[in-house]
Amino acid sequence: MALTAQQLDDISHARGDRRETRRPTVPALEEVLFQPFNVLDHGFVRVVDYMGDDAAVVQAARVSYGRGTKKVSEDRGLIRYLMRHHHTTPFEMAEIKFHVKLPIFVARQWIRHRMASINEYSARYSILDKEFYIPEEDKLAAQSTSNRQGRGEILVGEEAHKVLDILRGDAERTYEHYAWMLNENDDGTVPDTQRQGLARELARMNLTLNTYTQWYWKADLHNLMHFLRLRADRHAQHEIRVYAEAMMKILELWVPLTYEAFLEYRLDAINLSRSGLAVVKRMIGGEKVTQTASGLSVREWNELMSSLGLPSA
Amino acid sequence: MALTAQQLDDISHARGDRRETRRPTVPALEEVLFQPFNVLDHGFVRVVDYMGDDAAVVQAARVSYGRGTKKVSEDRGLIRYLMRHHHTTPFEMAEIKFHVKLPIFVARQWIRHRMASINEYSARYSILDKEFYIPEEDKLAAQSTSNRQGRGEILVGEEAHKVLDILRGDAERTYEHYAWMLNENDDGTVPDTQRQGLARELARMNLTLNTYTQWYWKADLHNLMHFLRLRADRHAQHEIRVYAEAMMKILELWVPLTYEAFLEYRLDAINLSRSGLAVVKRMIGGEKVTQTASGLSVREWNELMSSLGLPSA
Amino acid sequence: MALTAQQLDDISHARGDRRETRRPTVPALEEVLFQPFNVLDHGFVRVVDYMGDDAAVVQAARVSYGRGTKKVSEDRGLIRYLMRHHHTTPFEMAEIKFHVKLPIFVARQWIRHRMASINEYSARYSILDKEFYIPEEDKLAAQSTSNRQGRGEILVGEEAHKVLDILRGDAERTYEHYAWMLNENDDGTVPDTQRQGLARELARMNLTLNTYTQWYWKADLHNLMHFLRLRADRHAQHEIRVYAEAMMKILELWVPLTYEAFLEYRLDAINLSRSGLAVVKRMIGGEKVTQTASGLSVREWNELMSSLGLPSA
Amino acid sequence: MALTAQQLDDISHARGDRRETRRPTVPALEEVLFQPFNVLDHGFVRVVDYMGDDAAVVQAARVSYGRGTKKVSEDRGLIRYLMRHHHTTPFEMAEIKFHVKLPIFVARQWIRHRMASINEYSARYSILDKEFYIPEEDKLAAQSTSNRQGRGEILVGEEAHKVLDILRGDAERTYEHYAWMLNENDDGTVPDTQRQGLARELARMNLTLNTYTQWYWKADLHNLMHFLRLRADRHAQHEIRVYAEAMMKILELWVPLTYEAFLEYRLDAINLSRSGLAVVKRMIGGEKVTQTASGLSVREWNELMSSLGLPSA
Repeated sequence: MALTAQQLDDISHARGDRRETRRPTVPALEEVLFQPFNVLDHGFVRVVDYMGDDAAVVQAARVSYGRGTKKVSEDRGLIRYLMRHHHTTPFEMAEIKFHVKLPIFVARQWIRHRMASINEYSARYSILDKEFYIPEEDKLAAQSTSNRQGRGEILVGEEAHKVLDILRGDAERTYEHYAWMLNENDDGTVPDTQRQGLARELARMNLTLNTYTQWYWKADLHNLMHFLRLRADRHAQHEIRVYAEAMMKILELWVPLTYEAFLEYRLDAINLSRSGLAVVKRMIGGEKVTQTASGLSVREWNELMSSLGLPSA
Repeated sequence: MALTAQQLDDISHARGDRRETRRPTVPALEEVLFQPFNVLDHGFVRVVDYMGDDAAVVQAARVSYGRGTKKVSEDRGLIRYLMRHHHTTPFEMAEIKFHVKLPIFVARQWIRHRMASINEYSARYSILDKEFYIPEEDKLAAQSTSNRQGRGEILVGEEAHKVLDILRGDAERTYEHYAWMLNENDDGTVPDTQRQGLARELARMNLTLNTYTQWYWKADLHNLMHFLRLRADRHAQHEIRVYAEAMMKILELWVPLTYEAFLEYRLDAINLSRSGLAVVKRMIGGEKVTQTASGLSVREWNELMSSLGLPSA
Repeated sequence: MALTAQQLDDISHARGDRRETRRPTVPALEEVLFQPFNVLDHGFVRVVDYMGDDAAVVQAARVSYGRGTKKVSEDRGLIRYLMRHHHTTPFEMAEIKFHVKLPIFVARQWIRHRMASINEYSARYSILDKEFYIPEEDKLAAQSTSNRQGRGEILVGEEAHKVLDILRGDAERTYEHYAWMLNENDDGTVPDTQRQGLARELARMNLTLNTYTQWYWKADLHNLMHFLRLRADRHAQHEIRVYAEAMMKILELWVPLTYEAFLEYRLDAINLSRSGLAVVKRMIGGEKVTQTASGLSVREWNELMSSLGLPSA
Repeated sequence: MALTAQQLDDISHARGDRRETRRPTVPALEEVLFQPFNVLDHGFVRVVDYMGDDAAVVQAARVSYGRGTKKVSEDRGLIRYLMRHHHTTPFEMAEIKFHVKLPIFVARQWIRHRMASINEYSARYSILDKEFYIPEEDKLAAQSTSNRQGRGEILVGEEAHKVLDILRGDAERTYEHYAWMLNENDDGTVPDTQRQGLARELARMNLTLNTYTQWYWKADLHNLMHFLRLRADRHAQHEIRVYAEAMMKILELWVPLTYEAFLEYRLDAINLSRSGLAVVKRMIGGEKVTQTASGLSVREWNELMSSLGLPSA
């Protein structure tokens, strides 16, 4: 379970309150505000605050005095224009804040995105919960033989069982030792009054990297899309991609026009290199081009053919 | 006048709308939302959106599931603790967006603060209004004789008149020439159909640096305070300090607990160097310390005495 | 003239010194170190320091203990791989510092790139030189009729002469008034001892936006390429593009492998949107696709046809 | 041992090379270039490249054409002035790049400093070495009873032994399981050809947080000092402070004038709040001030008395 009864109660209370504002609101996002979207076995993503909407992008691009919106069709056209021509600053004018629960090894990838604000639950100050990520069986992939940072087939049988036993067993044992070293119950009492208990900032080093942590993560719309472009990509590690996918759904609720333009010009678009463009021109001209005649390496040729829906070399 | 009837009307309309939200609101800030605070002769600052409040700082520091607030006194204590110990990340969790109208030479100082998002009115794309900053007579200061980047006494008499005539005359003339070179009326018609009109991106170079521009400027609470610490300081140039002072009032409405801590630990606090601290210790011990015996330069000694409310060397 | 005899002498002295270092060096860049590349009528770009080379990118990508380089062909392959797959962090590991002299209106565009360090010559503290940008006759473009932020045909005849007269005359007059208000000679003496002279921080506001300023500008290789991608683009304003073009030559001297990959995968590459990709697939399949059947707007269709070297709608 | 024979050999080779450069060099830093400074049981810090020196700060502040240096005494004065008045941009003009080996839980604190460039050894791509941090006996501290994120007394006797046994045992076992799951020898051969081996990006999650990782970390002088101010502070966790202390020594070799000013105005300086300043003024005036009459909380009063070298409440 990702959340305790107390936590669900806190969320429910927060959702119950309504206030009046002069600020723009997004009813579709308000509808899911504070609600956790479950990710992996114990993680979640939930929106805890936001500022602005599609119209805020338009308003900033026009430096306008009012809401800046004329007709939806005009706003849509401007947003697509801005996205297409990499006029990124207006997309910085909307902001969103998430509360995320995630395994530490995922957090270590995520934090590489520096243009965001973060407050993480502190294991120097507090005690981490006993929760760790154990992959589902169909995610237990072998090392890819072709790609040094990719996954291959799914492990099965004896090896799969053994791996799951190891992951569970080691996480359990290291957590129990962590708790023993802390020598401190949840309510602050001390199990063994003959011992002092190791400092929290030291004891935590015994935990494994699949232990869950949590943080508040805040980014503007431009940097959120940059994050999603890299992490919702099929080359991203599965365990971070599922977070990105949950956030894609939130993006669609929040800024539907921007979301549509993001798919069109970023996520579903391709970058065609100078040499790749030359190949495409020849093909459109009716020429039969082969990899050897293309000037591209085999790998690049295959990437290009895959993008064009053609058979690879 | 800083705003046209149309602009005031747009603002009034925006202020008229109310919506329901689950997000935290700050009634005192809602009260002035969208309203321009006049600054200098044609400038203004107005809040166009915000996210979070004092409780958002607390909530992030605690990585909490609900609003995070217990009692005002506890929130106040935590905010003061965070400010005192330079735990700055929770202050990044609140965000504010301003619309600002300001002279270009002020904009050039302002933009040095990089941790903010900006959309400026484009003089490549649009035509700038005929508005320029002319200092009030009591702000027409001579060059300081002691500080190379400071102001001295106020100019008076003939010299003052001549300076104001120059500033007004040159701004008027360069603007008229700008308009002539553009050869384009407000409604898009062309005054002289025999001429083509110079490109906007070139014509603008004839304007003087006191011409007004405007932009949307968005920053988080931490970076806003960093800006205010430097620009509301008495060493800041008067023409940017008046903007910072208007924003200080907005800060007080928005996050009163943070504002109070900001005064206590930043704006009204002093940094005491190692040598300055040694002097203070000796003075508290009852010793009569002189500048020559202090190890401080005359300038640093005077700065220290001034901070301590004591006569300088 | 961009530089005085004294400045040229300072540069010449700096170039004369040689030292021994254990750091990687780039002889081709050392060759031009400190030398100004002239840009526009009074501007320049010159490299004042640098750190790293192509091998530094490779070394960081491999987190290696030695120089990281094996064979040039392997380094080249890795750099192309990193560029193609947007693994941008290794490119942050090389750094370059420029000294640039440029018109203020160009500086205002340039500074929008926030991921760089800047120290600008201070007109609060010092007196600006009497130098302003006057376009060459073949750069005196009319406003584009099709693109609101573009240029059209070159102005000729009477209108061109008048525009140049205005630009020269207004810059001269406003500068003379600036000097009069300052009431201070180069050597610090005072022309009119009956007057106090206006503070520098105020007098500067009378200057026009084509006045030259100068700054030290430092960026890492990744952010430099981001700057060049936007500013060496044909949509960039001519007056900033010429700086970007001078820096492109420097980039080629400094990191030839990265430069080559930058052309291949960025500058000479195109972004093909989802809809654009669908059109290309149909064309490769031998279908005759028209704009109306493409799902693209006329503008996007024309952009795509132009990229593919085909006639537009 | 922090380094293998092969790594030491790579370093030794890199140190052997000398080249000629026109750039400024710092002989004292060249002397230790590439050399590892040992930190903790298996970690190190070593400088792999640098750009600029004290004079580069001066040169940028003056936007000068030559080296900018006049006399050491003038440079020193200017650097102290810049530091004292928080003119931070000239300090961004010098840059340094480190190679650091450090436990993962330390890396997680370190990476919170976003204004730096990082390339970390990838455990998605490569196999981590079997090295983990085990505290020395005199660093095995109990949880502080007064400070929730601090350390108290040193553990002794049975409890200490048991803690060390746990840390060693769990790290050993989880690493062995990691290696088993990978099913891959150092030379790429496969121990058990009947098994596929788990993907590296998954297997790593079984490692404990005291496992060593390594990265290239590059920052400018301003941001380096910001890092050091927080991490060389006595409130920083011991395991990161020892890295900061090693870097302080490097800072002194690299930029001795900046280092001196950094101690004077930052590290050994104190921030005196408005209320604290009021207390100091009264004390200097000869008044006996008590905590209750001071307006300060007990905690703040004690912090102030400690700074002033006076007995606390």
